Amino acid sequence: MWHLHQFPLCPFSRKVRLLMGEKGVAYSLVRENPWEQRDEFVQMNPAARTPVMTDDKGLVLVDSVAICEYIDETVEKNPMISGTAAYRAEIRRLVAWFDQHFYGDVTGPLLHERMMKRLIHRQPPDASILREAMRRANGHLDYIDYLIDHRAWMAGSTMTLADLAAAAQISVADYLGGIDWKGHEQSKAWYAMFKSRPSFRPLLSERMEVISPPEHYELVDF
Amino acid sequence: MWHLHQFPLCPFSRKVRLLMGEKGVAYSLVRENPWEQRDEFVQMNPAARTPVMTDDKGLVLVDSVAICEYIDETVEKNPMISGTAAYRAEIRRLVAWFDQHFYGDVTGPLLHERMMKRLIHRQPPDASILREAMRRANGHLDYIDYLIDHRAWMAGSTMTLADLAAAAQISVADYLGGIDWKGHEQSKAWYAMFKSRPSFRPLLSERMEVISPPEHYELVDF
Repeated sequence: MWHLHQFPLCPFSRKVRLLMGEKGVAYSLVRENPWEQRDEFVQMNPAARTPVMTDDKGLVLVDSVAICEYIDETVEKNPMISGTAAYRAEIRRLVAWFDQHFYGDVTGPLLHERMMKRLIHRQPPDASILREAMRRANGHLDYIDYLIDHRAWMAGSTMTLADLAAAAQISVADYLGGIDWKGHEQSKAWYAMFKSRPSFRPLLSERMEVISPPEHYELVDF
Repeated sequence: MWHLHQFPLCPFSRKVRLLMGEKGVAYSLVRENPWEQRDEFVQMNPAARTPVMTDDKGLVLVDSVAICEYIDETVEKNPMISGTAAYRAEIRRLVAWFDQHFYGDVTGPLLHERMMKRLIHRQPPDASILREAMRRANGHLDYIDYLIDHRAWMAGSTMTLADLAAAAQISVADYLGGIDWKGHEQSKAWYAMFKSRPSFRPLLSERMEVISPPEHYELVDF
């Protein structure tokens, strides 16, 4: 049995959870607040970041990209990094886009302002940083609109890890009130379809202490 | 023929170049300053980051992780992401460590202070940020000492993409004067061996305009 060390609003852990769900792999959740730098956790991952995945035989997998590649390599059902080498490169380009670019522009600043400042620093969020993150989220949704206009799924004709990486980041940004869906019909239709998947339902019903999502967050029709 | 769009101090392009060198794949260099956001470049990669790799048939590969996975999948010689699934996960964990953690702590701040400020903002570097980057570089070298104490190479018994990712980041940090090798005998021995490899020599002889490396930078015996 796998054990995923994570906290509810970690977008990289959400990507792993969506992959595990789509592939039908069972796992238990272990709550970890990486900012507390717990000794046992830092020993498993000196970078002190979630997700970390362990099994009962002592295997420790660190980093969401490494974990997703491992699971996709070892579990045959529903391959999520598949197709030609060029298609796999396009999947990985988009995973990096959402993991790094979207996270750096949108999810990261929102988590810092709305979660870390509240939980740790006991400070109010900086309104100008929130505004800038929402402005950039809008640009990212434009890009997703463009992709979904040209393709059935994010990377092409099949659902891949790129869709899971995108949904993971967007769901955290949406939880933190950073997404304005107005004028983004393509992105919205793609995300609505995603929200109704069995792999996504458990994530949407979870809550982070102290921080509540907007009303539309959990609704499939939003 | 492949064409790699890059600039001399891009650590992610250096990782790709080391991989191409180790695998014996020919390529030409195309100089690109991503901060200029050239229209044709942003069209190839909306994230406006190097490296981007193109061929003569219209294929465009974006993101260093996607490019390295593509090359390792399609070129059999000297596999660099190989072995068991667990070993491959350890390789990818360390690649992410250097690409993100080392870059965020060390190479990124050094590039901003010593290159971007000089080339674009015409400002002097911030001494306190440089000191902090060097302090963190020292912590990273401690970790590499520890790894090399327990393993022949970064990820285990064979040279892998983890070594190339590490050498790419360290070489840029060293060029920018951010590395103090004193007291890091294991890291130094590993890096000295690396410096003498044919895949590394062309990188070490290149220069970025205006910015000169310290004297020891190119020497195998440093």
